Amino acid sequence: MQAPKLPPSPPSPSLARANSNSSRIRANIRGRLNIIPPDPPSISTSTPSPTTPKLKLSKGSAQLNRWSRARTLRSGRRLERSKNQDATTITSPSPSRSPPSGVVMIVSDETTESSEEDDVISPPGGKVIYMVSDGTGWTLEHAVNASLGQFEHCLVDRACAVNTHLFSGIDNFERVVGILKQAAKVGALLLYTLADPSMAESTQQACKLWGVPAVNILRPTTVAIASHLGVEPSGIPRSERNIPLSEEYFRRIEAIDFTIKQDDGALPQHLHRADIVLVGVSRTGKTPLSIYLAQKGYKVANVPIVMGVNLPRALFDMDHQEKVFGLTINPMVLHTIRKARAKTLGFDNEMKSTYSDMDHVRQELEHAGKIYARNPAWPIIEMTGKAIEETAAVIVRIYHDKKHKCSMPSISKRY
Amino acid sequence: MQAPKLPPSPPSPSLARANSNSSRIRANIRGRLNIIPPDPPSISTSTPSPTTPKLKLSKGSAQLNRWSRARTLRSGRRLERSKNQDATTITSPSPSRSPPSGVVMIVSDETTESSEEDDVISPPGGKVIYMVSDGTGWTLEHAVNASLGQFEHCLVDRACAVNTHLFSGIDNFERVVGILKQAAKVGALLLYTLADPSMAESTQQACKLWGVPAVNILRPTTVAIASHLGVEPSGIPRSERNIPLSEEYFRRIEAIDFTIKQDDGALPQHLHRADIVLVGVSRTGKTPLSIYLAQKGYKVANVPIVMGVNLPRALFDMDHQEKVFGLTINPMVLHTIRKARAKTLGFDNEMKSTYSDMDHVRQELEHAGKIYARNPAWPIIEMTGKAIEETAAVIVRIYHDKKHKCSMPSISKRY
Repeated sequence: MQAPKLPPSPPSPSLARANSNSSRIRANIRGRLNIIPPDPPSISTSTPSPTTPKLKLSKGSAQLNRWSRARTLRSGRRLERSKNQDATTITSPSPSRSPPSGVVMIVSDETTESSEEDDVISPPGGKVIYMVSDGTGWTLEHAVNASLGQFEHCLVDRACAVNTHLFSGIDNFERVVGILKQAAKVGALLLYTLADPSMAESTQQACKLWGVPAVNILRPTTVAIASHLGVEPSGIPRSERNIPLSEEYFRRIEAIDFTIKQDDGALPQHLHRADIVLVGVSRTGKTPLSIYLAQKGYKVANVPIVMGVNLPRALFDMDHQEKVFGLTINPMVLHTIRKARAKTLGFDNEMKSTYSDMDHVRQELEHAGKIYARNPAWPIIEMTGKAIEETAAVIVRIYHDKKHKCSMPSISKRY
Repeated sequence: MQAPKLPPSPPSPSLARANSNSSRIRANIRGRLNIIPPDPPSISTSTPSPTTPKLKLSKGSAQLNRWSRARTLRSGRRLERSKNQDATTITSPSPSRSPPSGVVMIVSDETTESSEEDDVISPPGGKVIYMVSDGTGWTLEHAVNASLGQFEHCLVDRACAVNTHLFSGIDNFERVVGILKQAAKVGALLLYTLADPSMAESTQQACKLWGVPAVNILRPTTVAIASHLGVEPSGIPRSERNIPLSEEYFRRIEAIDFTIKQDDGALPQHLHRADIVLVGVSRTGKTPLSIYLAQKGYKVANVPIVMGVNLPRALFDMDHQEKVFGLTINPMVLHTIRKARAKTLGFDNEMKSTYSDMDHVRQELEHAGKIYARNPAWPIIEMTGKAIEETAAVIVRIYHDKKHKCSMPSISKRY
């Protein structure tokens, strides 16, 4: 392994604070890769420890918000939403991470050296999160999105904008080092999934040394499963495993094929082959919901309800009527969606009124309601204000529940 | 909050071992909900501690495999793949979790009480993983799937089959208790995401008390982000947040709409509106790849390459030729896929030979190769043996890389 070129180490508070343990770690990493911490590796003493945050996360405490606001004020600028999302400039290290006053900063004389990493986009303002994965990075992205949902109260009002950068397919430690250097510079939090235990360990040690807060996000799950199965993890990233694509994978691909062909009432003669059939008036979300479910491996057909057009006979002739789901939505909301839709599609006035007229919308929903009433086996799914992922979760739960006739509804799989 | 009905507590080794701390925790939980541990709460002393597994996960050690095999042998049956996936019986607690010999078991006299939970499906054989989420559970499912990838070496040969059960939308502690009771009975590992801190805390305490190994899988990520932003998490599950659906969400829905309409070369006049255009011969995975990318918010068009049919002029007239990706695949692999496809579609002999004949497959791929050679701006994506998720990751990385012209390719977003 070739040692990456890195600027010489400046004296810094984090190194001064290094105890014998972290010195040993540093020596280890240096021995392996001849790494010297990037400039500046200094961390403000007010920053909580990365791996064991001391933050008390009690609900309702206003202290952290005050801290956050104070930090923003200290930075001397309001963290407003930047319109320039394509900006290629990088932020200077965040104010809270600049060295405490009194610390002598030695500027590296190899300033031109790190130009390669300087191109990473970090629009001005906002905290930076780096995500590093040895695979596709989708799991990481999914988990970070879910976690960020817990901070919507501040993301939405933009008091604390967040910029995430996903680095996928990072399969050697030299590339990790390049990213870490940059993370230290811009004061990023590093969230990673690295299957190779030695790479994960080196990353954690390097982060500690360079003051980059970091979490190996799948580690607790993998350790718990290993302990539960009594089998150790392979340590091989997905991309290197080269195992045959599974039956389940091909089932998913087939489900997508099926679902696209069945979209919008096409091929009613194949309805009986579907796992799930969605019925509903236009713009209730049948298509995106079908596609989302198909990605999860379910063959989905969707059939539109249009006043004056009979539903296909095949829908009622099918066995397993309980696999049909009737979608419903608040008429006001549907009216708004349809008006926007009519505008996008450039409908003329006559078309527009039959499609997005409030009375028509109401009549059509009533018509659908009557059909649902005549088919009590069909569960009714309320779509108003729900994301596709949420309604999909409800449908899949009902589907498995009915299929397995159990009273504690769960979605069960065998691996 | 109403206390759930639970059987009385039998004397048990785990309770006998309880130190003053866990007694206090028990008292706390009892005080809140009048909970008494389910029968049997006993854990074998050989089971690693749930939250802090002592397992040394050093790569290459054969000890755990031996342990696993020994455990299987101890169980007195081979953990074979069960064909009866719909079985509604439950497994008895796994052998390693049965009480050590010499322990007096007092069987509860309220055996009929827990009948509700007995219906959960656990096909015989294999370890059980329970996943509990206060939201859709998709993040949990994604993370567990990714982690299970680390155990493919044993899942594939079925020496350690795993059954997962996802309980989504679990929004009160009474329901968690019902699941925990069942988890203790079947010896399940509990992986959960619960946003409400007090519910998460009670769950962790109850798991400790009842000997259920458990991990709050998003906790480390959320704590790290909270610490990084200097803002505490809201503690509100997604389903309760009731925030307006975001712009990004509607962009994704629109992308799916667009992508479906553009499938298989439809509407070439709209090609310029696509973010990504995929070209390739039949069965290279254009459609599932398009749909996967659409779910991520990219408008994708796909255009088939068929010998003797000209590609639409609009494809070459577009600005941003770099958004066109040429898919390629090994001819042998494509031949196999097409043969299977021809069989499924019931092609007659003549159709079959033009579609899946090896010479024809080779010629068509050569024809595609010539087109790619004439369009050097198009990145070429190798589809052989790759999952859709993997090729999607490569395409999205190249897409962002070119868009932002940075030398350290990352997929960057602003929240």
